[in-house]
Amino acid sequence: MPSLYHHPMSAASRFIRLVLNEYELETDLIEERTWERRRDFLALNPALTLPVYVDESLHAFCGSGVIAEFLDETQGVFQKQRRLLPEDPVARAEVRRLTDWFLVKLEHDVTRHLVRERVFKLLMPKDLGGGAPDSKALRAGRTNINQHLRYIDWLTANRKWMAGDTLSYADFAAAGALSVLDYLGEITWSDASQAKDWYQRVKSRPSFRPLLGDRVRNMSPVSHYADLDF
Amino acid sequence: MPSLYHHPMSAASRFIRLVLNEYELETDLIEERTWERRRDFLALNPALTLPVYVDESLHAFCGSGVIAEFLDETQGVFQKQRRLLPEDPVARAEVRRLTDWFLVKLEHDVTRHLVRERVFKLLMPKDLGGGAPDSKALRAGRTNINQHLRYIDWLTANRKWMAGDTLSYADFAAAGALSVLDYLGEITWSDASQAKDWYQRVKSRPSFRPLLGDRVRNMSPVSHYADLDF
Repeated sequence: MPSLYHHPMSAASRFIRLVLNEYELETDLIEERTWERRRDFLALNPALTLPVYVDESLHAFCGSGVIAEFLDETQGVFQKQRRLLPEDPVARAEVRRLTDWFLVKLEHDVTRHLVRERVFKLLMPKDLGGGAPDSKALRAGRTNINQHLRYIDWLTANRKWMAGDTLSYADFAAAGALSVLDYLGEITWSDASQAKDWYQRVKSRPSFRPLLGDRVRNMSPVSHYADLDF
Repeated sequence: MPSLYHHPMSAASRFIRLVLNEYELETDLIEERTWERRRDFLALNPALTLPVYVDESLHAFCGSGVIAEFLDETQGVFQKQRRLLPEDPVARAEVRRLTDWFLVKLEHDVTRHLVRERVFKLLMPKDLGGGAPDSKALRAGRTNINQHLRYIDWLTANRKWMAGDTLSYADFAAAGALSVLDYLGEITWSDASQAKDWYQRVKSRPSFRPLLGDRVRNMSPVSHYADLDF
């Protein structure tokens, strides 16, 4: 069976888990704590990023962008209406732009700060960077989240799905990131009703169910985290 | 004619310029100073990243990853032996892994620090972040460059081209970044003879010639920058 090195609080890992679930590809999940810099994991992925997908021939695919393209080429092409990258090159570019937006820009502006300060630092030993959260980093993440939420609200108000008329990688990249932030109670859904409606639709999909069961040690999710009607 | 918003000191812009030259696609080059946050440019690319490619139908493609995939789908497929993404999904994944490595990881660890501190801060007005270089950021970039150079040396010692037997996007992503660092005299080529041999081969290609003529105001390149025999 293929395996996926991931972390429940890694937005990019959640994106790929959602895609694998959508395509009904069974995968062994292996939780990786990248800050431990395990030698075997470094050999798989010298960039030390998550997720890493290892297929049945033991080829390693590093990073969500590389994995998403590989899955499109080897699985998506056979999915017809359920393919998560459209056929048209211009439409594909819009899906990729937004997928990057959520996995690179939202990650950089918001997610990495809040996850690092609120979750990873609790799990890390002190000599590897663990300790109390840095209030400046928390503030940066919390300031930036509003602009992102407004953009998502605008996109979802103007389109059926995140990148256009059909469900795509862009929806699952966004949902992967927002579900991490929602776990931490960092999203004020009442400020973004269109985004909330879209998230409710994605969250109700069977592919999402396993993520609703994710738990991190010492850090329970907000009470509405697993509610489909939040 | 299509156009490309770029900056001569943006590694990702250089990558796409090299690809466009390899495929002999004439393009209008428009220099963009992203720190000015021009309203028209923000409308094209709200992420405010370079490069942005605008095709003849005035569709905008934002970011080198999105542009590279679009060019592969609309141009690469007709290039036969000269196609810069191989056909095989596993080989494509290795090209994409390394392309990301140079455009994301090398950029994050090294290039952005050195370019920002040594070039952009000279060009920026003070209220937009201009001023004297930050010695801590310079030191970070210069420390990290050695490890990257060793990795490139190892890759090029073990392979004909960066990602395998054939010339690919990975070569041009690496060359885009290294040529910026070389312009600034930040690379000690004598420490990396295999990397140097590889760079000499890429630099000698006709697609590279226009880059050798790039100049930035107030900042001449090192004397060997345009030498094919450095």
